[in-house]
Amino acid sequence: MQKKVKIAAPATVANLVCGFDILGLCLHDPYDIMEVELLQEKKIIVKSADGYPLPEDPALNTAGAPLLEMLKELDEPIGFSVIIHKRIKPGSGVGSSAASAAGAVVAANHLLGNRFSKEELVQFAMFGEKVASGVKHADNITPCIFGGVTLIRSIFPLDIVPLSSPPLYVTVIHPQIEVKTADARAILKQQIQLKDAIKQWGNIAGLVAGFLKNDYDLIGRSLEDHLIEPVRSILIPGFDDLKAACKQAGALGGGISGSGPSIFMLSKEKATAGKVEDAMKKIYTDLGIDFHTYLTTINTEGVKILEG
Amino acid sequence: MQKKVKIAAPATVANLVCGFDILGLCLHDPYDIMEVELLQEKKIIVKSADGYPLPEDPALNTAGAPLLEMLKELDEPIGFSVIIHKRIKPGSGVGSSAASAAGAVVAANHLLGNRFSKEELVQFAMFGEKVASGVKHADNITPCIFGGVTLIRSIFPLDIVPLSSPPLYVTVIHPQIEVKTADARAILKQQIQLKDAIKQWGNIAGLVAGFLKNDYDLIGRSLEDHLIEPVRSILIPGFDDLKAACKQAGALGGGISGSGPSIFMLSKEKATAGKVEDAMKKIYTDLGIDFHTYLTTINTEGVKILEG
Repeated sequence: MQKKVKIAAPATVANLVCGFDILGLCLHDPYDIMEVELLQEKKIIVKSADGYPLPEDPALNTAGAPLLEMLKELDEPIGFSVIIHKRIKPGSGVGSSAASAAGAVVAANHLLGNRFSKEELVQFAMFGEKVASGVKHADNITPCIFGGVTLIRSIFPLDIVPLSSPPLYVTVIHPQIEVKTADARAILKQQIQLKDAIKQWGNIAGLVAGFLKNDYDLIGRSLEDHLIEPVRSILIPGFDDLKAACKQAGALGGGISGSGPSIFMLSKEKATAGKVEDAMKKIYTDLGIDFHTYLTTINTEGVKILEG
Repeated sequence: MQKKVKIAAPATVANLVCGFDILGLCLHDPYDIMEVELLQEKKIIVKSADGYPLPEDPALNTAGAPLLEMLKELDEPIGFSVIIHKRIKPGSGVGSSAASAAGAVVAANHLLGNRFSKEELVQFAMFGEKVASGVKHADNITPCIFGGVTLIRSIFPLDIVPLSSPPLYVTVIHPQIEVKTADARAILKQQIQLKDAIKQWGNIAGLVAGFLKNDYDLIGRSLEDHLIEPVRSILIPGFDDLKAACKQAGALGGGISGSGPSIFMLSKEKATAGKVEDAMKKIYTDLGIDFHTYLTTINTEGVKILEG
């Protein structure tokens, strides 16, 4: 039996504009590197390769909690040791905790000869999100494990639908400000107008059709959010100006990644995505806020086995 | 120039379960027959072939109002005479008024050498719906003109997306009760819970993906409506029992057609659709309510030129 594996666990964009809580996509960059080893005793060890202090108790760790759930299912005297090279900054809004959780379970499953389905891995990994944010959501885990664009039709019972898409360039900017997921959740209105919901589901239907029909214009027209973005964007300085500048630069559209503060934009051409990146940089340079940008593409594979 | 045309204007199902106000489909049966003649004077005449009394003023008629709009665009000394053989019962919930409006404009456009796009025809035909119900909606007109399954991503501006679908059998029952569209609109809650809206858009996304991916199971799983059906179904006696019996008979799913009282069910196989029809008949026979049923398929063509 194989004993060790090294994997890349990528960043993801959840809450794809109108697709709040249901649509996400997987990125090529940034990604974490994780080394996972099979142990011959019932034990989970998680360590940071970067000297980042992690909780001793694996149940309190984003990678550890999912592995404990997996061990419960197995009832065998085995365990896993995990070393995480963290490259996706926690709190950036591109699925840092999901990458740890999803990477851990995909690596462990590989070491076990792929006994579990991707859906089962999502179920395990959701326990990592519960540790990270208090909520067992699958918004980032699903695209991280499945790759590409994913729809969560239903969370209870879990019903995941992988969606094909045409090639797209994704430009992401992470302004160095803090948006707490709990705050981003708290400011949402729990009651909405039916007429606004109808606009939203028209756009969701259009976006899904645009992906499946490889219709870039339809994707662009459907990247509208009448409900969540108007509320959440007030937590992100410069959001409206940045969005307008990116559309001006030729982006199809985009919005807040997850609950922010990162913002993503989709483009048909690489050159456009580069202009979008320049437009993003200018906005935050002018605002005097530090940032990182990524110019990447949709990762159709998800967590990737690098060695072992 | 061709002077006369005879067309078939089919029934349609709007508000496709979770796709309230955005998704519709076109049926092969029932359909109206319309005979339209080009006149050499600026005049619209609409007559019923069945002796049904129609308003003298064409502006007050479902077929006449759209043709008046078309004439405004043309600014030529021409007009149209229309004879309608009505087979789709008004008030049944399968787009009777839309068939008159859509049939009139498609026939007229044919006589004019197809000068107008399908989108423009929808815009004209919406004036017929305004006459019929007071609201310029396109829910039934769009599938009637485009055929197949149609998405209205946005109504202002009008953005229509035709969706492919796998072959489906459609069983429709029209119980002989009256549900006024105005009542069906009035009882809807204008405020809804965000969490319910999220369930709804998961299902809409799933339904669109199911149609485009030819995934019957996904179509079936997505045919759920958490918002409109629970409210509107109370206007239709026997609805819950009928739906349960149809699912039991093997239907993928279905719901209220338009604002009712007709109910439709989708099935993968013709034999199943027949069992569904039997189940429907039993429910309304037991309730002592008269009914008509139709066992038909999706009409991918829409309004059809029969002669001329």
